[in-house]
Amino acid sequence: MTAPLRLAIAGLGTVGGGLMKLITARRERLRALAGRDVVVVAVSARDRAKARGIDLAGIDWVEDAEALAHRDDVDCVVELIGGGGVVARRLVEAALLRGKAVVTANKALLAHHGMALSRLAEQGDATLAFEAAVAGGIPVIKTLRESLVGNDISRVYGILNGTCNYILTKMQDEGRAFDEVLKEAQALGYAEADPTFDIGGFDAAHKLAILTSLAFGTEIALGEIHVEGIERITLADIEAAGDLGYRIKLLGVAVKTPSGIESRVNPAMVPKHSAIAEVSGVTNAVAINGDFVGDLLLIGPGAGAGATASSVMSDIVDIARDTYVPAFARETLALASYTRAALDAHQGAYYMRLSVHDRPGAMAAITRRMADENVSLESIVQRRPRAALPGTQGAWHQAGSPASVVLITYATTEAQIRRALSAIESDGKIATLPQVIRIEQL
Amino acid sequence: MTAPLRLAIAGLGTVGGGLMKLITARRERLRALAGRDVVVVAVSARDRAKARGIDLAGIDWVEDAEALAHRDDVDCVVELIGGGGVVARRLVEAALLRGKAVVTANKALLAHHGMALSRLAEQGDATLAFEAAVAGGIPVIKTLRESLVGNDISRVYGILNGTCNYILTKMQDEGRAFDEVLKEAQALGYAEADPTFDIGGFDAAHKLAILTSLAFGTEIALGEIHVEGIERITLADIEAAGDLGYRIKLLGVAVKTPSGIESRVNPAMVPKHSAIAEVSGVTNAVAINGDFVGDLLLIGPGAGAGATASSVMSDIVDIARDTYVPAFARETLALASYTRAALDAHQGAYYMRLSVHDRPGAMAAITRRMADENVSLESIVQRRPRAALPGTQGAWHQAGSPASVVLITYATTEAQIRRALSAIESDGKIATLPQVIRIEQL
Repeated sequence: MTAPLRLAIAGLGTVGGGLMKLITARRERLRALAGRDVVVVAVSARDRAKARGIDLAGIDWVEDAEALAHRDDVDCVVELIGGGGVVARRLVEAALLRGKAVVTANKALLAHHGMALSRLAEQGDATLAFEAAVAGGIPVIKTLRESLVGNDISRVYGILNGTCNYILTKMQDEGRAFDEVLKEAQALGYAEADPTFDIGGFDAAHKLAILTSLAFGTEIALGEIHVEGIERITLADIEAAGDLGYRIKLLGVAVKTPSGIESRVNPAMVPKHSAIAEVSGVTNAVAINGDFVGDLLLIGPGAGAGATASSVMSDIVDIARDTYVPAFARETLALASYTRAALDAHQGAYYMRLSVHDRPGAMAAITRRMADENVSLESIVQRRPRAALPGTQGAWHQAGSPASVVLITYATTEAQIRRALSAIESDGKIATLPQVIRIEQL
Repeated sequence: MTAPLRLAIAGLGTVGGGLMKLITARRERLRALAGRDVVVVAVSARDRAKARGIDLAGIDWVEDAEALAHRDDVDCVVELIGGGGVVARRLVEAALLRGKAVVTANKALLAHHGMALSRLAEQGDATLAFEAAVAGGIPVIKTLRESLVGNDISRVYGILNGTCNYILTKMQDEGRAFDEVLKEAQALGYAEADPTFDIGGFDAAHKLAILTSLAFGTEIALGEIHVEGIERITLADIEAAGDLGYRIKLLGVAVKTPSGIESRVNPAMVPKHSAIAEVSGVTNAVAINGDFVGDLLLIGPGAGAGATASSVMSDIVDIARDTYVPAFARETLALASYTRAALDAHQGAYYMRLSVHDRPGAMAAITRRMADENVSLESIVQRRPRAALPGTQGAWHQAGSPASVVLITYATTEAQIRRALSAIESDGKIATLPQVIRIEQL
């Protein structure tokens, strides 16, 4: 049997702890599957005194994480510090430069510095693996990097943030308002005290940046992603979506178009009777369309100690088996530069909800402005607001309060929609900022 | 750059043709992704004169497929002959014995001879890969063999036969009878002239045998699978399922139980609001539960030239990249022997539809027999048959014709259900063979 694969683990939080448990529980099996032992020789974490419920006997404790990269008794560094900080980055850089394999779950690190790290990995002739960085336990990195190598990918999209999907699912199933569900999610630990990174769509954007690169063979371009969060989704939108045969999901979407890549994170309408519409709670999902394979949809846990450790372990065993695949499937120099398609060129149907004061006048103005821009309407409905409590019957809106008008367009372009809306706003007939949600053609 | 990977392809039917097109269309990309050229040096197929629309210039045509295994200019043999015949088997054996990598899409070959072939591969120090053998374009082999290596798998199940799922979906969506939809499927090429292999559940059983081995680290045991087909599913069942909140799917299911592995192919009830219930038409799906990862669900095309070629290509590029993973994830000798759990020990809820003549007397007898076996009923409903045409209103059953009684049980064992049914049959109150469908707890 080959010599053991010797690991150093940086970060012993939820994921690091989960990984330690997995390695301990599966010693024999990992030997059988990897063809060699997998052993942890050194660890590093912020607080040595913290009780973690894991046995660190015989494992070196190192105060400075970067020192792990310089040890001769380490073959592979597992970076589970997370976040965009400099400690994780320096550790990964040092390890790759010294030719050590690196496994990381750090999406921020990859979304910001993935190209530089990929070049370092090539210089050091080292593996850089990151299955756990996107969609937790779903093997989407391996699927894009290895399983779909023969395909021209035309689109990749998915539910990439469990917090947002939890909030939207709860709003939908229980008829509760955004703020209330967010507070509950925070209490349950599904959302951070400052939830902006999740609900603003930025976490999903990090993951989408990585998926986009792998799907289209392009350089990572986090800054080129159009990002909208779910803060403005109201119960009125959720209910209108349901009545119209849709569910609202925060999607990360990257599409290859003739003018470049359209890459965006936004709340989107998906057909109620689709598998992705049934993806509820903190679960994630990634859909990929390839010209040979057709449509794939992978659904699974997007976070959590066990799921993340499972993905980290798969990278470790690949390394133990001496598998080598370039970090972004091909050599960094062979990645195409990223060309952004203007969002104005986006084609699709739209949902719009407008608050209007003077209903007859507003309807006339709205339909005229849409017609001016050649936007065809599939439906136009005046909505009655429902009571917020589940199970109660809705009441018609009170006299004097603005009425809600919901429009669904046929396929059009973002530019047409934007021009029409801007004209409608200038007419002064709408009370608040219009709600606009793209309808995703699955 | 490394020397090219030289392929021999046996079988130029739908899949072989699709693969040739893929290799031709993606020459440059495959070079970038595999790190070396992938070239076809020889092919073999039944009918040389047949028009295939693929360019075979510069490629040797070999009459005897097995000769491909003996060529010194071939590194990897791609077996796309298919079926349980001796030609495919001899070719694969000869290639492995000579240390050549083999890629095959042949589920029958693997389900019957997988263990012997795996041993041969080890003797020849050769790769045996078969991503395309199960669930077409879905990367489920790689997921089980590589992505989930850290997990104890407790269950794997899925929609593994597109023909059956197409028929069940059509019956459900269009309210049409089994025979009629089967004829349509045959006309469209979704079902064979002799459909037994598909609708009898045998095709799904071949695939389940392979998945079971990979999921639980056991030897392949096709003969240990309990197989039921969809021939007896009627529109009455589909409609009753819908009313009760379920869909009927032909599932392959393998579960680890304390007494062994429960492995079966059967029509099953799945909750209407689950992602797998939304898997319609010829699409396949595989669900896997692992103790660390939790629940994964992979959905995609189960057959077709493009999807199958995509999976074959992923195996080929793995080989070009010098990736080595044992055929069944671990050395053949390390696979556990298969222990079958008695189906009688199956625990779960059941759907039953009984045709009764004397309704009051039958109901009393049925409920008494169920009570005798401690089977608790969640619901018991007399069903009125609906007209077969979609959109028409159902009529109450005619006087004199037998009435349909539908029972849903709480969780119980197969043994209890079988004993209760046998007692009910002996009471002479039911008109035809009872319909029994397991309800799958997702």
